[in-house]
Amino acid sequence: MSSPMKTGPPETGEASKNESSKHGSNLNRGISILDLILRVIATIGTLGSSVAMGTSNQTLPFSFQSFQFRAEYNDLPMFTFFVIANSIVCGYLVLSLPLSIFHIIRSSAKISRIIFVIFDTVMLCLLACGASVAASIVYLAHKGNANANWLPICQQFSNFCQRISGSLIGSFFSVIILILIITSSAVSLSQI
Amino acid sequence: MSSPMKTGPPETGEASKNESSKHGSNLNRGISILDLILRVIATIGTLGSSVAMGTSNQTLPFSFQSFQFRAEYNDLPMFTFFVIANSIVCGYLVLSLPLSIFHIIRSSAKISRIIFVIFDTVMLCLLACGASVAASIVYLAHKGNANANWLPICQQFSNFCQRISGSLIGSFFSVIILILIITSSAVSLSQI
Repeated sequence: MSSPMKTGPPETGEASKNESSKHGSNLNRGISILDLILRVIATIGTLGSSVAMGTSNQTLPFSFQSFQFRAEYNDLPMFTFFVIANSIVCGYLVLSLPLSIFHIIRSSAKISRIIFVIFDTVMLCLLACGASVAASIVYLAHKGNANANWLPICQQFSNFCQRISGSLIGSFFSVIILILIITSSAVSLSQI
Repeated sequence: MSSPMKTGPPETGEASKNESSKHGSNLNRGISILDLILRVIATIGTLGSSVAMGTSNQTLPFSFQSFQFRAEYNDLPMFTFFVIANSIVCGYLVLSLPLSIFHIIRSSAKISRIIFVIFDTVMLCLLACGASVAASIVYLAHKGNANANWLPICQQFSNFCQRISGSLIGSFFSVIILILIITSSAVSLSQI
C-alpha cells in the first residue's frame, strides 16, 4: 500500500508535466505551420516588389534637346537599393523555408529558432530600410519639394510613377508579415 | 537500504534539474541587465539624433530675390518624420526601462518578455524607416540626381548638411542596439 502512495505524486506530476509539454509541442507545431505560410507569403511579396520595380521604365513619346526622355528604376540609387534589398530578403526567405519545415517536424528545436529570430530581425531591418528609402523618393517624385527646388517628375512620367508606387505595397506588406514571423518565433521559443 | 536506493535517482534528477533551472535563471538575470544597459544606450542614441535633427537650421548670410536663404529640418517632411520616429522610439525606450528592471528581479517573466519582443520589433521598424528616409534625403542633398534634375543643396547649406548627416549616426546606431535587444530577448525566452 505504501509503494503506490509513494510513487503516486511524482507520477501525477510527471503526467501533468508531460501533458503540458505535449500541449506546448502541439502549439509549437501550429505556430511552425503558420510560420511556413507567412514565409511563403512574404517571399511572394518581396519577389513581386522586386520584379515590379526592376522592370519599371517609361520612354516618353517625344524627345527634346537636353530633356530626359526615359525613366528607369536605376536612374535613382535608392530604387536600385530597393530592388537589391527585396531580392536579398526574398532569397533569404526561400532559403529559410526548409528550416521552417524542419521546425514543423521537430517542434522542440531551440538553437535554430534563435538563429531564425536574429536573421529575421536583420532582414526586417533591411527590408524596412529599402521600402522606406524608395517611399521617400516616390513621395518626392509625386510632390517634389519647393524648399530644395526639387520639382516633381511624375507629371512627365506618370506610368513610371504608378509602377514604382505600386511596387512599394508588396514590400511594406512583407515588413508586416516579418513582424508577425518574429512574434510567432518568440511565442514558440517561450513554449519550449 | 532499499529506501535510499529508491529515493536516490529522483532526488539526483530533481537536483540536476534545479541546477539547470538555476543556471537558466542566472543567465536570464545577466541578459536582463544587458538588456537594461542596451536600452539606456539606445535611449541616448535616439534622443541625441532627435535633438540634433530638430535643432538643425542654417541661415545664409545673404539674401537674394526668390532665393532660399534659410534651411530648417521641417522644410522636408522626411526630416520631420525622422524627428517624430526618433522621439516615439525614445519615449517607448524610457517607458520600457521599469519593465526591464522588473525582468532583472523576476527573471522568469514570460508574457512581458513576449510583449517586449513585439513592441521592440515594431519600434525597430519605425526607427529603421525614419533613419533610412532621412538618409535618402541626406544623400540627395549631398549628391543630387541628374536624371530627375534635382540639384544638391549642400553647396549652399554646408553646416546644415553636416548637422543632418551627423544626426543619422545615433539613429542607425540605435537600430543595431535594438536588433541586439530583440536577440537577447529571444535567448532569454528560450531559457525560461
